[in-house]
Amino acid sequence: MKLPEPCHQIGIVGCGLIGTSWAALFVASGRNVFAWDPSPQAREGASGRVASLLAQLQTLALFPMKKPGNFAVSEDLSSVVQQAFFIQESAPEQIAIKHQLYRDIERVATPYTIIASSTSSFCWPELFSEALHPERCITAHPFNPPHLIPLVEIYGPSAEVVRNASDVYRSMGRIPVNLKKPAIGHIANRLASALWREAVNMVAEDIAGVEDIDAALVHGPGLRWSTVGAHMAYHLGGGPGGIEHYLKHLGPSQERRWSDLGNPRLTPEVCKLIVAGVTREADGRSIAALEEERDGNLIAILKSRQLSHHGQNQP
Amino acid sequence: MKLPEPCHQIGIVGCGLIGTSWAALFVASGRNVFAWDPSPQAREGASGRVASLLAQLQTLALFPMKKPGNFAVSEDLSSVVQQAFFIQESAPEQIAIKHQLYRDIERVATPYTIIASSTSSFCWPELFSEALHPERCITAHPFNPPHLIPLVEIYGPSAEVVRNASDVYRSMGRIPVNLKKPAIGHIANRLASALWREAVNMVAEDIAGVEDIDAALVHGPGLRWSTVGAHMAYHLGGGPGGIEHYLKHLGPSQERRWSDLGNPRLTPEVCKLIVAGVTREADGRSIAALEEERDGNLIAILKSRQLSHHGQNQP
Repeated sequence: MKLPEPCHQIGIVGCGLIGTSWAALFVASGRNVFAWDPSPQAREGASGRVASLLAQLQTLALFPMKKPGNFAVSEDLSSVVQQAFFIQESAPEQIAIKHQLYRDIERVATPYTIIASSTSSFCWPELFSEALHPERCITAHPFNPPHLIPLVEIYGPSAEVVRNASDVYRSMGRIPVNLKKPAIGHIANRLASALWREAVNMVAEDIAGVEDIDAALVHGPGLRWSTVGAHMAYHLGGGPGGIEHYLKHLGPSQERRWSDLGNPRLTPEVCKLIVAGVTREADGRSIAALEEERDGNLIAILKSRQLSHHGQNQP
Repeated sequence: MKLPEPCHQIGIVGCGLIGTSWAALFVASGRNVFAWDPSPQAREGASGRVASLLAQLQTLALFPMKKPGNFAVSEDLSSVVQQAFFIQESAPEQIAIKHQLYRDIERVATPYTIIASSTSSFCWPELFSEALHPERCITAHPFNPPHLIPLVEIYGPSAEVVRNASDVYRSMGRIPVNLKKPAIGHIANRLASALWREAVNMVAEDIAGVEDIDAALVHGPGLRWSTVGAHMAYHLGGGPGGIEHYLKHLGPSQERRWSDLGNPRLTPEVCKLIVAGVTREADGRSIAALEEERDGNLIAILKSRQLSHHGQNQP
């Protein structure tokens, strides 16, 4: 199936959870999307999933003036790539698969087409060091669930390409954030890993239960971090003297607290405690039910952001 | 000034930012509050601050059926303590001051009065090991800004006292969370410290700028943690197999990511980078303006929680 208008067309490579989320966002923002996946099953399921995510996005009214674009799926990667000015790759996290895809993509794409990888686990050099046109290649990592969480973490060697890609993401209501150099886990998953390490430590040390730690996060720092960043929170915690006062007077006590944090291992015993705790917390709700709750709550928060004067944390 | 009705009366010890926030919450929930502070300035400013926080709370309509209680300030600690069934202590974080206060409080309080400390930096044994009635003493740490963030982290040796105190906090719309044993930083500040350590590391290692790290948090994991806890997020990240699948298949990659996280020091050079970054992020806005934005955004999010089906993360 071919799309009617090739202009402003987006190529989606990989129609899993991440790829279809990207597709829904691009379609919602008025772009025509042409998608590819090697699996017939994935291709068959893609349109239905894009349509249902699109319905969720429309309740958010991110793009009130935009007529949604078209969405089509193909089994021919070349035709998807040839007509795209921007390609979002969300293939499985296997380096050989990704390298082969980039070779196939570069063979038919124009040298100006931006190739963005959704990779969570690889850094730019591992993916693109041997690309024909490395300057047009970027890592652009979304955060789950990608159609609702605005963050996109970007690294690429060409400032111009990063700027152009950022404009594309911003036009979909995304918040692009730049890495100055590649890093394992980019920014957000480094923060998430650091926090979870201590969450696991508190379970291992029997300081608190899994469900109490999660509740403390959701009703405490998580709530605050949804509007104030970590550095800025200490600026506000420093009183009238702000971050300078904080660092001078409370920096040493932070360093002492850092030295008290744990360095747990995911031993079978610790894993057992985590599984038991998450099972208590889920309280019989299925993964699908929990995801639906999460998405409903995220949509409510995103709507509240639209109502309150937000945007001050955008870089 | 004496309060008309001594029943259901709350004693507030310390009228700083934390003490007056507690006072506003108790008053909003219909309690009569009698407050003490040794400083005439603090006593004079207390009523005005409680009134303005109360106005913020009323926009939240947490207690639509409650007539606000009365608020009065005294320079006589004994009269404040004698009439209270529940005392919230929010004195400066100096151990000698707190010990002296507990001696003064226990001299006049009934043996059944609960004494709760808002301490952020001390653990229960440091504060209460030498109390006359240690079983009635608890640490009950709120999270800044305490009148808006629902979390209260509680530890005490008596399960009954912890249960009774939790009921009091719940009746004010708070979310009490229990520590199984005392820990430096309780739960929330351990999580916050662990996350900030990596945020500081990324600044020190020049991976990203302060304002980009904060934006990544606010528009990524922070947003998600305002509705899904850290453990639960990996349950949902594990697909249909949930947390068990996640731990089995992605546990090793988490451990690798943990080993890549940094262990920075707050050297003068690093502090300089943080101050410069926060200054860029504040972009000329005063602390007061930033706090007003934060509070407005928090109120909007809390309202969205009231509208969406929430409560599933309450322990």
